[in-house]
Amino acid sequence: MSSTAGQVISCKAAVAWEAGKPLVIEEVEVAPPQAMEVRLKILFTSLCHTDVYFWEAKGQTPMFPRIFGHEAGGIVESVGEGVTDLEPGDHVLPVFTGECKECRHCKSEESNMCDLLRINTDRGVMLNDGKSRFSVRGQPIYHFVGTSTFSEYTVVHAGCVAKINPAAPLDIVCVLSCGISTGLGATLNVAKPEKGSSVAIFGLGAVGLAAAEGARIAGALRIIGVDLNSNRFEEAKKFGVTEFVNPKDYDKPVQEVIAEMTDGGVDRSVECTGSINAMISAFECVHDGWGVAVLVGVPNRDDSFKTHPINFLNEKTLKGTFFGNYKPRSDLPSVVEKELELEKFITHEVPFSEINKAFEYMLSGAGLRCLIRMDA
Amino acid sequence: MSSTAGQVISCKAAVAWEAGKPLVIEEVEVAPPQAMEVRLKILFTSLCHTDVYFWEAKGQTPMFPRIFGHEAGGIVESVGEGVTDLEPGDHVLPVFTGECKECRHCKSEESNMCDLLRINTDRGVMLNDGKSRFSVRGQPIYHFVGTSTFSEYTVVHAGCVAKINPAAPLDIVCVLSCGISTGLGATLNVAKPEKGSSVAIFGLGAVGLAAAEGARIAGALRIIGVDLNSNRFEEAKKFGVTEFVNPKDYDKPVQEVIAEMTDGGVDRSVECTGSINAMISAFECVHDGWGVAVLVGVPNRDDSFKTHPINFLNEKTLKGTFFGNYKPRSDLPSVVEKELELEKFITHEVPFSEINKAFEYMLSGAGLRCLIRMDA
Repeated sequence: MSSTAGQVISCKAAVAWEAGKPLVIEEVEVAPPQAMEVRLKILFTSLCHTDVYFWEAKGQTPMFPRIFGHEAGGIVESVGEGVTDLEPGDHVLPVFTGECKECRHCKSEESNMCDLLRINTDRGVMLNDGKSRFSVRGQPIYHFVGTSTFSEYTVVHAGCVAKINPAAPLDIVCVLSCGISTGLGATLNVAKPEKGSSVAIFGLGAVGLAAAEGARIAGALRIIGVDLNSNRFEEAKKFGVTEFVNPKDYDKPVQEVIAEMTDGGVDRSVECTGSINAMISAFECVHDGWGVAVLVGVPNRDDSFKTHPINFLNEKTLKGTFFGNYKPRSDLPSVVEKELELEKFITHEVPFSEINKAFEYMLSGAGLRCLIRMDA
Repeated sequence: MSSTAGQVISCKAAVAWEAGKPLVIEEVEVAPPQAMEVRLKILFTSLCHTDVYFWEAKGQTPMFPRIFGHEAGGIVESVGEGVTDLEPGDHVLPVFTGECKECRHCKSEESNMCDLLRINTDRGVMLNDGKSRFSVRGQPIYHFVGTSTFSEYTVVHAGCVAKINPAAPLDIVCVLSCGISTGLGATLNVAKPEKGSSVAIFGLGAVGLAAAEGARIAGALRIIGVDLNSNRFEEAKKFGVTEFVNPKDYDKPVQEVIAEMTDGGVDRSVECTGSINAMISAFECVHDGWGVAVLVGVPNRDDSFKTHPINFLNEKTLKGTFFGNYKPRSDLPSVVEKELELEKFITHEVPFSEINKAFEYMLSGAGLRCLIRMDA
């Protein structure tokens, strides 16, 4: 039992007071975990597009002040009532979506969309009592997707915590708690390319490159990267991408370009941009008879996916995935044990005090993941 | 070797001289099979919607005179040069699509869309020489989808012929050469419902009922039939349908009705109408996390499938199938051996001389399959 268990902890957190304004490092009070909650000491966190999207809060009902952050690694500080499978000292990855192990989704072999703990971006409070565990000078601060890892300590539902091998380097495996697992799982768990096959990856950001990495691990022979920014190809080669297509270089749809390159279409495609046109291209560029396209990128609210239904009748399959179909608690521990070259994804590093630089890197499109060291 | 081998055979065929006009029983001359072709004596045939669709020829470039028919059972009369796996006397089902066993599709475990012999509704001649094997008073008559089974003898590419157990009753298993296999395979090979699961079937014609039969065989617990004609429910019960929904009885989309009936959606759906709205409903009515929808019905040329892409991200899968994903030569022989209650599909029977009655039954929506006895 740690000496802080049951006590309010005062620590530093990066608070977003207003949409789009730099975060402010504040002294926050973090209440003890309630039933089925755990309090974590965050050691490393990184910035993901989703944080930036809700921080910018364009077209959203703004929810501020808020503590963002959801890709992270840490150590359990204390556990609330009823938590039996985690204890202080456990190394963990907090995850933005959970696994209650009781609902139909958790009991299904196919789904990871837990009824109880599925991602909820609109809820800024804990499930247990509908309140926040954070406050600054007495003012409650909203949580973000149940993780709020831009804080030295945070409180998370126990169902949103993956217990991992304590020997795993937390400063590296922390990137598995969101984007990298999403891309990797999209390929390995959903697209499932065969050895020697061809795979098109739409969008060569961190998620897309993780999807490419999955294709490389699966033994795909041709990995075709598709991106509107040709500068990304050089970096993408490190992740197994063998060919590159920039749709802007052609005056016909990219699906036709890919069909010509591959004698009728690729065996698999993975869409990681969220652009509706890329989704349609990703579907239409797979080969008839056996092609499978997997959607990963999150669409806009008003998007409509349109295609001629004959594409389906010609035996193309369209699937989507959420968090790479990984169940956070059941699957992440073994993903951490995989021989993955995760260092390749970490292109920047900043101390917690300079967290706003991570936002600048992302907004300028520089690099893939910026590691934020909480102790620095 | 039959005595007619290598000779032109004169026999009776039902010729469609004009779009939408009654067929005329004519004396036709049937040329011997050329390389990789076989000539079949047709014993039983049945009428499928596809025959009627191309006979009506609405919105199509008409191709007449033509001999329709593609669901049938018969016996090999003679074989052309190079045919090694069929011989006179073999019991066979001719199929509107083929299997060359050489192309990428035939070599793929997943596809049945043979590059060489895939269905071609626009080609009224044989592949070998681009000519017809049929003539009436010297005038060539077009073939239909390579089968033209509304003739006592027909010539078919050897790759479009499934050799079956001679003990199988041809007057019953003949319905497996198109619609029934299409529906059955859509469920058993593509949707693959688990024991105890729920399945929605859109369209309760012969194909839909075969899909329901597949769900029953797979052990589905709830089989929800969806049709605009409520009279079809009674018949559908024989095929395992346990519940019925007529979209016209509700003032909300049928996918919402089904979601309410099933706590969020069915596990699988199979769309057998070809209506674009039914396709969208069939996709949207499956459960998130694990639901799979399979499109079978053939859409109109200008249809556009539209849905919000978040449905895919929520882990619903959309697939389509062609001929139930069966490879005609490799798979049909074992389908024939299955314990299927095929008699249930044969609701009418006419002698060949009254073949136009089969068209009348179909146009009036009466029954499922009308067997046409060539010897009567």
